[in-house]
Amino acid sequence: MKPVLARRMAQIEPFRVMDILARARHLEREGRDIVHMEIGEPDFTAPQPVVAAGVRALQGGRTHYTPATGLPELRQAIAAWYRETWGITVAPERIVVTPGASGALLLVLGVLLDPGQQVLVTDPGYPCNRHFVRLLEGEAVSLPVGPETGYQPTADMIEAHWGPRTRAVLLASPANPTGSLLDEHVLADILACVTRRGGLLVMDEIYQGLVYEGPARSALALTDRVFVLNSFSKYFGMTGWRLGWVVAPDEYVEALDRLAQNVFLAAPTPSQHAALAAFGREALAECERRREILRRRRDFLRPALQDLGFAIDAAPQGAFYLYADCSAFTSDSAAFCRTLLEEAGVAVTPGCDFGNHRARYHVRFAYTTSLERLEEGVRRLAVHLQR
Amino acid sequence: MKPVLARRMAQIEPFRVMDILARARHLEREGRDIVHMEIGEPDFTAPQPVVAAGVRALQGGRTHYTPATGLPELRQAIAAWYRETWGITVAPERIVVTPGASGALLLVLGVLLDPGQQVLVTDPGYPCNRHFVRLLEGEAVSLPVGPETGYQPTADMIEAHWGPRTRAVLLASPANPTGSLLDEHVLADILACVTRRGGLLVMDEIYQGLVYEGPARSALALTDRVFVLNSFSKYFGMTGWRLGWVVAPDEYVEALDRLAQNVFLAAPTPSQHAALAAFGREALAECERRREILRRRRDFLRPALQDLGFAIDAAPQGAFYLYADCSAFTSDSAAFCRTLLEEAGVAVTPGCDFGNHRARYHVRFAYTTSLERLEEGVRRLAVHLQR
Repeated sequence: MKPVLARRMAQIEPFRVMDILARARHLEREGRDIVHMEIGEPDFTAPQPVVAAGVRALQGGRTHYTPATGLPELRQAIAAWYRETWGITVAPERIVVTPGASGALLLVLGVLLDPGQQVLVTDPGYPCNRHFVRLLEGEAVSLPVGPETGYQPTADMIEAHWGPRTRAVLLASPANPTGSLLDEHVLADILACVTRRGGLLVMDEIYQGLVYEGPARSALALTDRVFVLNSFSKYFGMTGWRLGWVVAPDEYVEALDRLAQNVFLAAPTPSQHAALAAFGREALAECERRREILRRRRDFLRPALQDLGFAIDAAPQGAFYLYADCSAFTSDSAAFCRTLLEEAGVAVTPGCDFGNHRARYHVRFAYTTSLERLEEGVRRLAVHLQR
Repeated sequence: MKPVLARRMAQIEPFRVMDILARARHLEREGRDIVHMEIGEPDFTAPQPVVAAGVRALQGGRTHYTPATGLPELRQAIAAWYRETWGITVAPERIVVTPGASGALLLVLGVLLDPGQQVLVTDPGYPCNRHFVRLLEGEAVSLPVGPETGYQPTADMIEAHWGPRTRAVLLASPANPTGSLLDEHVLADILACVTRRGGLLVMDEIYQGLVYEGPARSALALTDRVFVLNSFSKYFGMTGWRLGWVVAPDEYVEALDRLAQNVFLAAPTPSQHAALAAFGREALAECERRREILRRRRDFLRPALQDLGFAIDAAPQGAFYLYADCSAFTSDSAAFCRTLLEEAGVAVTPGCDFGNHRARYHVRFAYTTSLERLEEGVRRLAVHLQR
């Protein structure tokens, strides 16, 4: 029987990488060895003090619902982290703890976006962003970005794409799939443009902390008039714990709280108790050690891929991705990825998972596996591509 | 500054009970003793084997993302529970594990509902249901129900409310705030009506297992053509773990998976591993012991409130709520609740949290606290009401 689906489902697409991953797992079950450079999830788990705090919460029965905005002490701990690590003052009352950054984005768009209103997003960019917009009957408008602007938009581009129905701009720094940072001066110009237009800026900062060069500050250093999405998944290695937060302008917190009460009740309680330990000295030191490991992987992988003929022109300064131009090898990156998997045993993600703009000339490499495995992957690519 | 909110936020209301709860906590901090009969959350935590499995998952680093539809072994375990405990065959492939039943409802409505389409819901009913519909730009249409039909709609009522824009009916059994069950014959008639009309039936069964009299089967015993929402929160005492599921007709699973990938990534991983232990003999025996405790509380509270002058006419067969007619005391149940809290130290929830139909003549008592505390609450009510 054919399902009768809501119209929005025609534009909400699956991740193509899921097919790659499923096929890779299938090959592994058949005995093949696969180098995984497709997975957008750190290979680390949570630092030990976080795990220990989670265990204490479970054993202590601290598993009832929390307030919809999160444990007050966790909101305070996040505010303290902004202050102590980033030198930014954020009132805890402006922080709403959410089920992952996904939950944060649903709340923000739910509170802001009327049907038919537009949100400007980058292409390439995190694919779910446009799907969240579609879920709420808004319209995602692409800002095509390339290496010439460091894979970030300029204020002029935003000005040029702004229309009567534009409500907000959603940007990411560091960005997925490019690892690019948004320059502070550009951000200031964008903010001025958005403010002049009477719109709102939403910043995805879920890779905050995973930056390997250059200054990496939160947009909150610049302004209170921004919605900042963040997550315990990446820097803190807590993916499956499903915990994130949003920092909002004061006057929007009441509405975010109200929507959170209704659609989530609250973020997972054990994860919230565990996350309280993420800001301790030992846990933060562990996160910094991991950042060094990721930096070494990046510093190996980028030149190695360039040597093979991939173009990676804009500096990937953060996150754990390289967005590589593969036009030397193919004009169909999806087919290219399938071939790399089948013939070379290397799994990477095709550009089409991140948008349309030159997507078929790009693939994303994730350095979420060990240096040894990355080296093995590069060896296999070398053999395959030079055949 | 005044926030500029999406139009939907004008109809997405906070729980009034949150004000009651906040005021109760305030009074407690001032040294007052409050009997909590407002909280819609069991006072139990998860059974010990569930906690132990959660601890093992954390310590074993099993905290990465799972597939968007959930751990395959958890989907299988849920299917086995339907088979062994309820005598119902459900293919694991039809089960999608979600972040709470809230997540399940968001997925189902997201996949089914176009803007402007209607969903029939009972009044009184769980307030978030209509807010989910509004979030997705649909329209919730109230079916006013009272004790004369056991607080459940009839097929005739659904027929009478069905219009050209009606897409689905969302019912709950056992229901919140009334504890009422939907009779199997009525359900069959409703299903026939919905099918004839080309619509869909969504059943909220999150209180499944918490039934104290009469046969209590899932709608899945009757048909595969239904979306059934369920949760580990209530019967299994896992509220803060945020874990639920939906059973869907075969052909809708792909779309649910696709939407889940985008809006949740997946349900919390530690909770999924822990829930695997919920279906073991020891955990189920513990859940049954708790059901007996809840039954004893209900069996005390209902006649005690009736003796005081509350009318509780339809049998509250399940969940952990009594929906009491307080018209002997007030025609403004919200004010009545405030007075009971301030003067008698008893917290209960006003009817307006559950809809409009005779809401100002009703309050909800939750028996989510010990028998001793319920007895104390009744003593205080007796003194207060007979003054």
